[in-house]
Amino acid sequence: MASVDVPVALLGYGTVGAAVNRLLTESADDIERATGHRLRVVKALVRDLGKERDFPPAGGVLTDDVREVLDDPEVTVVAEVMGGVAPAGEYVLELLRRGKHVVSANKQLVARRGAELFAAASEAGVQLRFEASVCAAIPVIKVLRESLLVTNVYRVLGIVNGTTNYMLTEMEAGKTYDEALADAQAKGYAEADPTDDVSGADAAAKMAILATVAFNSRVELDDVERVGIDAIDPADVAAARQLDMVVRLVGAARLVDGSVDVRVQPSFVDRHHPLASVDGAFNAVMLQGDAIREITLEGPGAGGIETASAVVADMASVIGTMATGFLQNDAAWRSLPPLAEGEHRSPFYFRLSVEDRPGVLARVADLLAEREISVARLLQYPNGQGAALHVVTHETRAGALSDALDAIEQLDEVRARPLPLPVISDRGVEELGWA
Amino acid sequence: MASVDVPVALLGYGTVGAAVNRLLTESADDIERATGHRLRVVKALVRDLGKERDFPPAGGVLTDDVREVLDDPEVTVVAEVMGGVAPAGEYVLELLRRGKHVVSANKQLVARRGAELFAAASEAGVQLRFEASVCAAIPVIKVLRESLLVTNVYRVLGIVNGTTNYMLTEMEAGKTYDEALADAQAKGYAEADPTDDVSGADAAAKMAILATVAFNSRVELDDVERVGIDAIDPADVAAARQLDMVVRLVGAARLVDGSVDVRVQPSFVDRHHPLASVDGAFNAVMLQGDAIREITLEGPGAGGIETASAVVADMASVIGTMATGFLQNDAAWRSLPPLAEGEHRSPFYFRLSVEDRPGVLARVADLLAEREISVARLLQYPNGQGAALHVVTHETRAGALSDALDAIEQLDEVRARPLPLPVISDRGVEELGWA
Repeated sequence: MASVDVPVALLGYGTVGAAVNRLLTESADDIERATGHRLRVVKALVRDLGKERDFPPAGGVLTDDVREVLDDPEVTVVAEVMGGVAPAGEYVLELLRRGKHVVSANKQLVARRGAELFAAASEAGVQLRFEASVCAAIPVIKVLRESLLVTNVYRVLGIVNGTTNYMLTEMEAGKTYDEALADAQAKGYAEADPTDDVSGADAAAKMAILATVAFNSRVELDDVERVGIDAIDPADVAAARQLDMVVRLVGAARLVDGSVDVRVQPSFVDRHHPLASVDGAFNAVMLQGDAIREITLEGPGAGGIETASAVVADMASVIGTMATGFLQNDAAWRSLPPLAEGEHRSPFYFRLSVEDRPGVLARVADLLAEREISVARLLQYPNGQGAALHVVTHETRAGALSDALDAIEQLDEVRARPLPLPVISDRGVEELGWA
Repeated sequence: MASVDVPVALLGYGTVGAAVNRLLTESADDIERATGHRLRVVKALVRDLGKERDFPPAGGVLTDDVREVLDDPEVTVVAEVMGGVAPAGEYVLELLRRGKHVVSANKQLVARRGAELFAAASEAGVQLRFEASVCAAIPVIKVLRESLLVTNVYRVLGIVNGTTNYMLTEMEAGKTYDEALADAQAKGYAEADPTDDVSGADAAAKMAILATVAFNSRVELDDVERVGIDAIDPADVAAARQLDMVVRLVGAARLVDGSVDVRVQPSFVDRHHPLASVDGAFNAVMLQGDAIREITLEGPGAGGIETASAVVADMASVIGTMATGFLQNDAAWRSLPPLAEGEHRSPFYFRLSVEDRPGVLARVADLLAEREISVARLLQYPNGQGAALHVVTHETRAGALSDALDAIEQLDEVRARPLPLPVISDRGVEELGWA
């Protein structure tokens, strides 16, 4: 096939944009071998034309006027690597409407305005790809959409935020939350304002996208329950170690009897579970489905060149399939309800700080038993003037546990409402040696 | 897009073939949403028409005459799920020559006759896909070819044989080699004749395919060095534990200064390495590249439905891209030489059984030092009338170590030639706490 030159444009020319241009340039032969085409950046939208840049583009490529991209009839594929919901959203919408394929690395945009953007893409008969919006170079979107096309995926578990994973790994090694945060900031993993990471908001956007693709039903950001890691202290980390587990911020999306449940929360992960060995700033996503049992993908979930690699792979996939309609449509072709409040099931860990008086354990056990919550493991330690009870339940309804904790909180001997954390293990408690 | 019925054929209707037909039937809507087409099995080649089968196909589909598939002008896509190199190879070649796309789950065929088959596919302008030939449902071929298109992949590490991984996991738990093998046979993981698995031959075929795709240069089966796990005994497993490692059969493919090195051998894997946590019959492949650092894919590497899932995904990818030429060509577009004998570099472990006489340690140390092999860790234990020396070297040329071991073998105190095993760790010996 004769090589055809394909002019492309970038929205944004920061770290990721420059890396996209570099990869397109340095890997032009690889892309041509795969697609028959050579991709060349002809326009790149920036705010400041005068700024010094890595891998500066050819003269005349930079522009601060989006109309130069929108109105360029030559440009058929655009990579959005500028970030932010506005004005990126309006630009992408307009590009799609004008019949240009778009590749986006922007998780907030895809999570918040996906429905509208995919509708516009479908209307115009163009593709919107977004591999880089979730976990950078880990190709979980392509794997879900293409490789696992015929396996009914019913559960997605992910460590999808590297900052918090790094911090929890460091806390395991003995640091306090504040020390781990300061360390993550010093290493450039965490922003000066770390709220987006530690609150679980960043992970929630990624899980909303993953759940939408996995279950083919749009999950809105507001549908994702989340608990941040600021709720975790060294006592939790120590308790996890006692139980041969680690504390991780886990995103969990499940298809339960036709309902969808998506949540991000600190969880106790069995040391033998594949997610437990994801150290430092790496990400991992485990996909469970009927035909495949489970497939886990692990790798760097952030980084300029890693993200750019996914953007360029998506551009090549667009070029390689744009005449065919293969997988370009909205992943969400059906509409499933969210699981009702409290219906989420899991084994849970919680810790009670109690006055050490006779009968307190019996009262706690009664309140659990009344709600048919069965205890898998219990550890008791002295704790100042009282005792700390560490409780692991068998699988139970979150709502039942919440009721029990409401009642337990009312006991005179109990000092504070405990935070239940889900326990993630492939092994039953029997195998864990707890039975 | 209007749905178009696509008649497909199967070569073979055993466990995998029946599962392919089942997935095509049960997931017809998913495939139609992704590709716009409905795939329907119209012919399936079998040896015995009368045999009872799972998910029996519609009347008239089964045939014992390959010409009914070859000559059917309606059939444009064929899945080869019959196994064996002959006659499967001749059938696939002829199908490709007649302009039919082929999806194969057959690692021996792809590893042994790949060059010829891909040339025929290219000549006829059709696709030959082979995701299911390596690690069943783990989508490593698609990830390498499409997602990692612009990342220069320079190393592939894999646990690609579930039988041996299961056996080594069991040996870690205390079983002997023979007990572990009997157990694997009882569980159906190992054949009555386990040679293909325990010798590393099965893993070698998979690594040849992976290296070919990763490095874009054909790796022949004979180019893959291999050592089987029958060389491993409980003393190795115990030594690994002492070093906070596990013994695993690891396939390692490397691009070294423009040469390719591919080998399968028992290796000591650092417990913190992602491959160390791959338990039981699971497989995992780690891909290291310039832009991505490393991505690891883990999942079931065998099984009828898992394999069928990959076959069907490949069929959908063919249908979705067949007009475009996207990635259908031979992955091997260049020809790189094999790395010269002995030039392979790694840290190594070896164990020496010696008479416990003064000076033996000094003589061993001298013979290593003369070849600039530096010792990272040394453990000495009493061993019957003598001593066992466990040695871990820093990274060294395999050839230098082999020379040293030749000389060490000549020492009067040394009882047997040791087998050096590569050590796989992301951490330097300093981080391992050995320095």
